[in-house]
Amino acid sequence: MSDLVITSPANPRLKALVALRRRRAREEAGATLIEGYEELSLALDAGVVPSTAYVCPELFSRAGLAGAQDIGVQEDLLRVLRGRGVEIVRLSRTAFEKVAYREGPDGLIAVADSVARDLADLTAGASDLVLVCQGVEKPGNLGAMLRTADAAGVDAVIAADPVTDWSNPNVVRASKGTVFALPVVSATTAQTLSWLREHDVALVVTTPETEVDYGDVDYTGLVAIAVGAEKHGADDLLLGAATHRVRIPMAGRANSLNVAASAAIVLYEAVRQRRALLAPPPGP
Amino acid sequence: MSDLVITSPANPRLKALVALRRRRAREEAGATLIEGYEELSLALDAGVVPSTAYVCPELFSRAGLAGAQDIGVQEDLLRVLRGRGVEIVRLSRTAFEKVAYREGPDGLIAVADSVARDLADLTAGASDLVLVCQGVEKPGNLGAMLRTADAAGVDAVIAADPVTDWSNPNVVRASKGTVFALPVVSATTAQTLSWLREHDVALVVTTPETEVDYGDVDYTGLVAIAVGAEKHGADDLLLGAATHRVRIPMAGRANSLNVAASAAIVLYEAVRQRRALLAPPPGP
Repeated sequence: MSDLVITSPANPRLKALVALRRRRAREEAGATLIEGYEELSLALDAGVVPSTAYVCPELFSRAGLAGAQDIGVQEDLLRVLRGRGVEIVRLSRTAFEKVAYREGPDGLIAVADSVARDLADLTAGASDLVLVCQGVEKPGNLGAMLRTADAAGVDAVIAADPVTDWSNPNVVRASKGTVFALPVVSATTAQTLSWLREHDVALVVTTPETEVDYGDVDYTGLVAIAVGAEKHGADDLLLGAATHRVRIPMAGRANSLNVAASAAIVLYEAVRQRRALLAPPPGP
Repeated sequence: MSDLVITSPANPRLKALVALRRRRAREEAGATLIEGYEELSLALDAGVVPSTAYVCPELFSRAGLAGAQDIGVQEDLLRVLRGRGVEIVRLSRTAFEKVAYREGPDGLIAVADSVARDLADLTAGASDLVLVCQGVEKPGNLGAMLRTADAAGVDAVIAADPVTDWSNPNVVRASKGTVFALPVVSATTAQTLSWLREHDVALVVTTPETEVDYGDVDYTGLVAIAVGAEKHGADDLLLGAATHRVRIPMAGRANSLNVAASAAIVLYEAVRQRRALLAPPPGP
């Protein structure tokens, strides 16, 4: 079976693909946009099967591939996609450049089902660690926090009132594949707080407006760590629901930490406490 | 004295300004490019006096100002600049849009002396904490690490073999003013290692290639914490000079932490140890 080939940028399927650059269109279609060789490889590694892959072999040589790789790996990836039953649509260079999200596209874009799960489907184990990111705007921050959450052994990440959705191709990119590996959820803050209450999850919210040091709280049980938006931090609703409000000590100008750094610091305090709990007592 | 007005994008002064988008031109001119109201305000707060400010009042209304502010604050900023003897050059909208670095420019760009200091001028106190970032590419990462370093009370940040320079306007932006507040240096890795040896600074390098946990090292003395480039981590030269190579435990896929998150985690372990040292012993 030969691939569908599209050369006209005015083709209706390409218009639908371009529309997926907008969050609302992604949400309506229940779709995640995956752009780039590395990102698509990580998705496949995580068991994601896209419905369609749009490819432009002419652009493969422009790919930002790591040093030891050559464009043969992209042809290999096409074979894997075909083997998994993914529809392949070949685009002319003009058409591909119209649909590409990033500058310097490498000739690979795929559409897969939304990566986000429903809050109702999220379970909470006895000592689960949850990260709540409220109102985060920048895809790079959301992606970096997801990588940190993955490294810290977090069980689920909830974006509360997110400005950026999990299916944004720049979140996918910044997450380095972890968006496919870790349960991610989008919900309102009110829905998130209901879920936390329902599952008896302690809530630790970072804020400069407290005297409690983040290191003085116990993170060894079932607990959610919450960070607020880049500009304004956690809102009153989130702060009001906190079991503990904690601050990260800062020596320099007030509130200089970026949100992803704050999340990393508190998550790794939780890791430290949990490992200390598991460690054998010091010898005689 | 009335301001100089430039309406032609072909004006030689604007050509020189556009050239400063390139790192080499910034280095040759010993210049830092500061773009945006917030960034320029933070520079002035830190005592930086630009040589020239290029302004386009017509663009002031497009500024990405925080909610409570209006464009009057930009006029106020112009008065402050004049009061400090900064040359003001007014540009037509066409001319300004040609020189602007970011999308959606807010009508303010300034040129100041390079923010980076010479390694030779850097001193090391008995319990100083130094951050070394090797080969970091992304301005956002360099800026985020600088904010974390500022919050953690770091005494100096050295960019070793940097791909991005401290005077890049996106580093200035991402640093949220900390690039003006904290001593920053650019040097080769070899120069950096010489300086560390000369000043008897212990060197802790993060890498996945070790069994030593980052929490098992003492950071209370004169110590430098080093992180490597986004893609390849610390190089052999840096690793070979390490007093300790340390790893951050990761539960998820190998090496999933981003470089700024890694720096935040290890820097705040240093903060934790230093505060524990200063804390009064537990009461009877």
